[in-house]
Amino acid sequence: MPAVDELKRIVGEPHVLQGEQAEPYQVDWRNRYAGRALAVVRPGSTQEVAEVVQWCVAQRVPIVPQGGNTSLCGAATPDGSGSAIILSLARMNRVRGIDTDNDTMVVEAGCVLQAAQQAAREAGRLFPLSLAAEGSCTVGGNLGTNAGGTQVLRYGNTRELVLGLEVVTAEGEIWHGLRGLRKDNTGYDLRDLYVGSEGTLGVITAATFKLYPQPVAQCTALLGLASVRDAVALLSLARQGFGASLTGFELIGGNCLHGVVQCYPQQRIPFEGPSAQLPWYALLELSDSESAEHARARFEAVVGEALEAGLVSDAVIAESMAQSQALWHLRESIPLAEKAFGKNVKNDVSVPVSRMADFVETTNAALQARFPGVEHIIFGHLGDGNLHYNVARGQAYTEQALLGLQEDIYAVVYESIRQHGGSISAEHGVGQLKRDVLPLYKDPVELALMKRIKQALDPLGLMNPGKVLQG
Amino acid sequence: MPAVDELKRIVGEPHVLQGEQAEPYQVDWRNRYAGRALAVVRPGSTQEVAEVVQWCVAQRVPIVPQGGNTSLCGAATPDGSGSAIILSLARMNRVRGIDTDNDTMVVEAGCVLQAAQQAAREAGRLFPLSLAAEGSCTVGGNLGTNAGGTQVLRYGNTRELVLGLEVVTAEGEIWHGLRGLRKDNTGYDLRDLYVGSEGTLGVITAATFKLYPQPVAQCTALLGLASVRDAVALLSLARQGFGASLTGFELIGGNCLHGVVQCYPQQRIPFEGPSAQLPWYALLELSDSESAEHARARFEAVVGEALEAGLVSDAVIAESMAQSQALWHLRESIPLAEKAFGKNVKNDVSVPVSRMADFVETTNAALQARFPGVEHIIFGHLGDGNLHYNVARGQAYTEQALLGLQEDIYAVVYESIRQHGGSISAEHGVGQLKRDVLPLYKDPVELALMKRIKQALDPLGLMNPGKVLQG
Repeated sequence: MPAVDELKRIVGEPHVLQGEQAEPYQVDWRNRYAGRALAVVRPGSTQEVAEVVQWCVAQRVPIVPQGGNTSLCGAATPDGSGSAIILSLARMNRVRGIDTDNDTMVVEAGCVLQAAQQAAREAGRLFPLSLAAEGSCTVGGNLGTNAGGTQVLRYGNTRELVLGLEVVTAEGEIWHGLRGLRKDNTGYDLRDLYVGSEGTLGVITAATFKLYPQPVAQCTALLGLASVRDAVALLSLARQGFGASLTGFELIGGNCLHGVVQCYPQQRIPFEGPSAQLPWYALLELSDSESAEHARARFEAVVGEALEAGLVSDAVIAESMAQSQALWHLRESIPLAEKAFGKNVKNDVSVPVSRMADFVETTNAALQARFPGVEHIIFGHLGDGNLHYNVARGQAYTEQALLGLQEDIYAVVYESIRQHGGSISAEHGVGQLKRDVLPLYKDPVELALMKRIKQALDPLGLMNPGKVLQG
Repeated sequence: MPAVDELKRIVGEPHVLQGEQAEPYQVDWRNRYAGRALAVVRPGSTQEVAEVVQWCVAQRVPIVPQGGNTSLCGAATPDGSGSAIILSLARMNRVRGIDTDNDTMVVEAGCVLQAAQQAAREAGRLFPLSLAAEGSCTVGGNLGTNAGGTQVLRYGNTRELVLGLEVVTAEGEIWHGLRGLRKDNTGYDLRDLYVGSEGTLGVITAATFKLYPQPVAQCTALLGLASVRDAVALLSLARQGFGASLTGFELIGGNCLHGVVQCYPQQRIPFEGPSAQLPWYALLELSDSESAEHARARFEAVVGEALEAGLVSDAVIAESMAQSQALWHLRESIPLAEKAFGKNVKNDVSVPVSRMADFVETTNAALQARFPGVEHIIFGHLGDGNLHYNVARGQAYTEQALLGLQEDIYAVVYESIRQHGGSISAEHGVGQLKRDVLPLYKDPVELALMKRIKQALDPLGLMNPGKVLQG
């Protein structure tokens, strides 16, 4: 085990943590993965990151980069050997600069996502990346996993928000790639290669992000639907009617909404009678560059068309900002309200939007055939072809019995995803969780190319070993 | 020299061209680059491409992929040795399918861009990639160079329009990656690596593209400006006022408009008196999802605000579709009208929008100091930070004298690009033209990483040798 004195010299003694101090970094936030590290190293600058990596290369010490430690796949947790360092980027948390004429912002990897959003807002701009963990996740982690979230329909995943990167390579060199250019065709796209590589090719230390104008008004509506097929037709109609102003289109199973109001009685479903008992709902968000009145008028036109076409059974259009927020709050409360259904088996699925209805029908049927009585908890970003497709115990199983079936449930769902041309990880990444199943669902030529890239950019295999690819 | 009989067996005898038949493929369309090929091979399917590549690997024969042969950088022309084959994708020109619910389209590499646009239009959708060569360039070439064009401000470069790829690797394997997913975080982003690699890593045979709703109405306006600085401020105001409906923002030097009406007397500048003699103009395009009246009303509001703020000297908002088209036609005629200024030295520059005014001022001054009397022909996509910054002889030089100064002019312009954090190739790529200057302007760490990728994915160096990277 190499001595860490040299690391203390590089980053300063207080920033090399061992023993008890290191513990919170060694376990993921959901307590699903626990590892052990030689030390937690917290560099304060890109130069220090480079020197730490150079030391690791010389000593053959593996490196596990870590941001807010909010991975859902164990991507930031070391193995149990105690041979790796955890490289925490938390101290590199500055917004280095905002350029409003260029609509760009340079942010360090350790900056908490909410702080980056806030900095943009104070400059009169929108940084549209937004997701549940935004109060604690860091932009470095968002970059590492190519995070999605609630605004993808309009603004894309993290990858589409990045213009430039600063990276410390696996050999400890600094790539100064913080370009603020919307066009640059001078060679291979290394930027998008590092984004989404989950720390296995190098360490992203900063990024240049695109900014957007703040919308003048936002309005939401909740629409009741008979089927996923109708939801897909409604999406098409809404995209045509709203264009790029359509910034959200969430599908929600009726039982999810009932779970929310059961857990949080102060919330309510804004329908009564049969409209409150529909199998599906869609939450639409419109961002308008004119006015709240204009947003509402557009909603009325498109929702009217959908009602007339028989796609929608009932609809509520928010009449105020508060009402808009209450509707979003219903949607956002679903993950927390899931406990009402007991611990469940979670899937982060994407399929082409056109195959979504068929995917839900056939997967539900296959699960009921194999595991009669399980309950389907389905909600998510239909506009992106991305569903949280979760399976709960229903009346038929104990929590423990259901969790015992977890691998079998995954197998049924993943096989259906394969048949529908989808992905087993839409926005959460691979990490440790899906590393070993990835070869079963990934094109073998693609997987072989990935291994060549890994070998080329990290020949010693020190960057976040055991994540994404098998060792 | 290996015999080509086996190639004839793979693709059929009529599709292996040699001698006179091969000539048009061996010279680029501007007659700047001429090479010689062992043969031109025109496979009809992905399987045939794979077999051709396998044969080339076995025989160590280099491969130069070619689409519509419209490269501006000699990227699709072989060297003079006659050792390489030209792999023409022209026969693979099908639109394989359009999925309107998923808003995607699968197109083969040899499909002419205009045919792809047309197929989308017939399905009631917009495929927004649009550029001057669209009548003859192919989507394979667009993918290879990550082509830009006139709609980048709203829809991004080619890269941002791609969801999936089918690729024949440098070893002749087929990567089946034609996913139609907007979210898929299961490993490294190979898609964006092949896009923009100019055929040096493998052969793209097909792609899954994003489609968008057709706008209900489009409206343009031409605004007269005193400076580039005012144009940048106007862009900011227009982005705020129009949001994603702003689909075009072109900057045009006053002398460019005068060149157009001199060349094409049937066209006219829609201003009189001093307003027709301004140094700069901006052409704005608004795409509306409501109506032509709504588009015009929004233009009036934003242009009114710009006039009031003193950013704009005079403005014409198109009152009809025909007038909108006439304004665009002025802009589109500039490249053809450039002959009025004599042959010139062309640059495809990008810099951050916020540094654009400074770039133009200081580069103009540096050129005048070195080459007194040259004329500046400046126009382009200001909204993307991309200018065509061309240098003409003015009254001071003969055409031949100016072209003799070409390398010196490049050196002045490239140095200024470097100082302003820009790129020497915004949308045209590197090809042969900029291969040897690239190392002077690219971060050395980035260039070393590019070489490692090349080595990893094309270890024999057979894919489009001598393009992008030095051999």
